[in-house]
Amino acid sequence: MTAEGHPAIEGLVRAFARLPGLGPRSARRIVLHLLARKEGEMRPLARRLAEVADAVRACSRCGNLDVSDPCGLCTDARRDPRLLCVVEQVADLWALERSRLFKGRYHVLGGLLNALEGVGPEDINLSPLFARLEEEGAEELILALPATMEGQATAHYIAERLADSPIAVTELAHGVPVGGSLEYLDDGTLAAALKARHRLRVG
Amino acid sequence: MTAEGHPAIEGLVRAFARLPGLGPRSARRIVLHLLARKEGEMRPLARRLAEVADAVRACSRCGNLDVSDPCGLCTDARRDPRLLCVVEQVADLWALERSRLFKGRYHVLGGLLNALEGVGPEDINLSPLFARLEEEGAEELILALPATMEGQATAHYIAERLADSPIAVTELAHGVPVGGSLEYLDDGTLAAALKARHRLRVG
Repeated sequence: MTAEGHPAIEGLVRAFARLPGLGPRSARRIVLHLLARKEGEMRPLARRLAEVADAVRACSRCGNLDVSDPCGLCTDARRDPRLLCVVEQVADLWALERSRLFKGRYHVLGGLLNALEGVGPEDINLSPLFARLEEEGAEELILALPATMEGQATAHYIAERLADSPIAVTELAHGVPVGGSLEYLDDGTLAAALKARHRLRVG
Repeated sequence: MTAEGHPAIEGLVRAFARLPGLGPRSARRIVLHLLARKEGEMRPLARRLAEVADAVRACSRCGNLDVSDPCGLCTDARRDPRLLCVVEQVADLWALERSRLFKGRYHVLGGLLNALEGVGPEDINLSPLFARLEEEGAEELILALPATMEGQATAHYIAERLADSPIAVTELAHGVPVGGSLEYLDDGTLAAALKARHRLRVG
């Protein structure tokens, strides 16, 4: 007898507590919530988890997650093949898709270069990126990588490798977040926003 | 094609987002975390959920959750049958068990009296409580109910019903939480702590 009753319940609490953003307290709340809704939520969640684990795989072309390989984004003829957007992870791809602003294709690196932690070009999805560029004839490569040391190191590595190619390599603009107050902004962002200042268009 | 790729992934994200304490953002993070750990975490979580849904039920005597009925706490001969502790929900029982301070038995009400929302004595696990008291011969009934309107109404109802019985009805003490600063304490707790003040024992 443990504090969470039977060891099976305790094991389930521990499995939830391991998920990102959750701890023992929130995991206990979730398990009790589910135990009170066995048919309506608990069994459906178990089924969905198994189904998605079976059906979903990483796209061998771009690294996106989908039930088909190549994924729905890679095979969608309405997406512009001239634009290729490089992201670190699938979550970033989802964020861009939610904005509905980008109509090209993606390439998920699955990591960033990190000399300190020994992550080199061969450890992330980089060779397939250069192979794609040759095959698919993209004209612009948009680097939508995080504004961190690792993100910038990765961006520079890619830009250098493509220095002699006709492909235009661009990156997202830095600046004040829309709706953001200057007061709470970090110095790096403020400096970038100041450096990239531009004339106000009026009239 | 949705922002979360395939509708199956989106459905799983929505199922997680429905859990207490989670929203769309944290649910997406969790689903991506699991999809990157299919064998190590995702399938085991699916299996555990199904197993616990199959095995765990509410104890017909006390309302605790366990794989046996009556539960391990009710059948544990080392627990003192003279002490019965009334709690609102299983989470409260777990909290008390974690403290390892209480060695009696429990009774889970599964709710509190709430006149405004039309929750009467017959809507919560109250009749079985009075039946148990007759059968099991408890000598003290500890009301470990929340210090809210509903908790206090429920406590008063139980105390009144047992006014003519030889059973001692007690409640948890109110006061300053251990380690708590007075500055951030609500007036009700401060008033209770002041009212229940006692002589400092020295020497």
